[in-house]
Amino acid sequence: MTGGEIGGGDRRVGPMVLTVTLNAALDVTYRVPTLVPGATHRVTEVAEQAGGKGVNVARVLRALGAPVIATGLAGGAGGARLRSLLAEEGVREAFVPIAAESRRTVVVAEPDAATGLWEPGPTVTPDEWTAFRSRFADLVRGAEVVVLSGSLPPGVPVDAYRALIEAAREAGARTMLDSSGEALRHGLTAGPDLVKPNAEELAGLLGRALSRPAEAVGAVRALKARTVVASFGPEGLLAVTERGSWHALLPHPVAGNPTGAGDACAAALAHGMIHHRPWPERLADAVALSAAAVRAPVAGRVDLSDYRRLRRDVTIKEL
Amino acid sequence: MTGGEIGGGDRRVGPMVLTVTLNAALDVTYRVPTLVPGATHRVTEVAEQAGGKGVNVARVLRALGAPVIATGLAGGAGGARLRSLLAEEGVREAFVPIAAESRRTVVVAEPDAATGLWEPGPTVTPDEWTAFRSRFADLVRGAEVVVLSGSLPPGVPVDAYRALIEAAREAGARTMLDSSGEALRHGLTAGPDLVKPNAEELAGLLGRALSRPAEAVGAVRALKARTVVASFGPEGLLAVTERGSWHALLPHPVAGNPTGAGDACAAALAHGMIHHRPWPERLADAVALSAAAVRAPVAGRVDLSDYRRLRRDVTIKEL
Repeated sequence: MTGGEIGGGDRRVGPMVLTVTLNAALDVTYRVPTLVPGATHRVTEVAEQAGGKGVNVARVLRALGAPVIATGLAGGAGGARLRSLLAEEGVREAFVPIAAESRRTVVVAEPDAATGLWEPGPTVTPDEWTAFRSRFADLVRGAEVVVLSGSLPPGVPVDAYRALIEAAREAGARTMLDSSGEALRHGLTAGPDLVKPNAEELAGLLGRALSRPAEAVGAVRALKARTVVASFGPEGLLAVTERGSWHALLPHPVAGNPTGAGDACAAALAHGMIHHRPWPERLADAVALSAAAVRAPVAGRVDLSDYRRLRRDVTIKEL
Repeated sequence: MTGGEIGGGDRRVGPMVLTVTLNAALDVTYRVPTLVPGATHRVTEVAEQAGGKGVNVARVLRALGAPVIATGLAGGAGGARLRSLLAEEGVREAFVPIAAESRRTVVVAEPDAATGLWEPGPTVTPDEWTAFRSRFADLVRGAEVVVLSGSLPPGVPVDAYRALIEAAREAGARTMLDSSGEALRHGLTAGPDLVKPNAEELAGLLGRALSRPAEAVGAVRALKARTVVASFGPEGLLAVTERGSWHALLPHPVAGNPTGAGDACAAALAHGMIHHRPWPERLADAVALSAAAVRAPVAGRVDLSDYRRLRRDVTIKEL
């Protein structure tokens, strides 16, 4: 592979990334030997971490040494806990408080399986949404790149991402959108600088499934975004940019937990945006960081030395 | 059945019950259509209630119109939430704060099954335990009956119930102990006025299983408690008292969720203690309230009109 890897001593103050997580969560993991439906289980270990896709992106950016601020909506005891957990990790946060309780995502972890229980998101009031937009307008003035990730909680308008992308553009910041369904569709109408769908989201946007990355180039050009980076899981990443199109992948699949791999990919792409790195390098970083996230024993925690090893194996093909 | 039923307009100030819940919990119910291990589930409804055995006893006593104060240990966001939920229900509480987070008990409720996930209890510091004993000594002066229920969280001495029973006796209050394992065994050495084991706990205490209530009378007399009320589930209650021994049961089994039935039973027995009701009436109340708790759609919430109907069917046999 060409170019230097990212991370390491790269902690100087520089261009800042702002991550937005409107439906943040307190991620709770319950370890049990076996999950038996209908039975009562004594949980042997409880682990908590701040969660939600944008929060995960911020965590990986912080590990890469990039200046990042995590914003979004957080409420109640769960919201307070997720903010204090972020602070303990050294991730700067500027969450806007809401009255309702932030959701929890509970993962019941057996040695070989994980069962997820996703609480519904909190209901956001119109005043809280107005307060968030106002705070966002302040924060975005210090940001070079804004990453907008995940679902919208009840009460937030379905075109929320469009409004935020427009506000970011007015402030001179570039934007990356990583969402799904109606939130993604409405956000795309504002023309984000980068959109990062997975194969399923791409099929939803295009109205048909595309089984192989190389086949998708033409269809993807129709999307209203400057750049599209579509992830096809073990089939790798397809990037369709103004400077060319590439397909990046690891020749060997990696085993592990895919939760958080998409957020590690988004973090690598945001890092590439702020440092204006060449596309092949951004894609190699994104594939290797995603794979390192899959292999990480704790979902979403990337081992940078694993990333460096994997990065050497990434192949990039110009299309 | 003889005698009047309990509950209804009986809300005058009178002798007070103090319930003790050292390992209180925030009970959370997640409703899902089906629980599939290994899959991710969107929870359709989240319900929270204050929990722990003594808290459940207090709730039923409050429904019966008996003056009651719930004390115990509660900490963190979960502890604050359980205290505010108790206040919303109108249950007087005097919980002592601890630094660690109170546990949650999560029940994943499918239409026909319930899967429990019990978090481990919080670790209590020696200073917090000292503070609790001091608070208990104040509270018990206003109590006629003290109900000590459930497990001990880490950090609380294994003979905690012995110390509390002795302090209650010094203050002139009578005591009921409803626990298991070592906590029950140590508590019994202080000679509580009433001990309420179930068949499994009784087998643990006696070192052998007793399949039929009537066979247990002789063995139960050996326990160091003035009165033993042993519950045998659908086989009914066995009471061995200084005034005689009785076996009380419903001739027909009731279908439903047994969670909380033991606490409804304890509440009926505490109510009988403060009002010095005749033993056959206490036992009829206890059997009928337990059965009403089994039939209640929400665990631990007793429908008093259901209790009244069931009470007519209870049979009491003197042994």
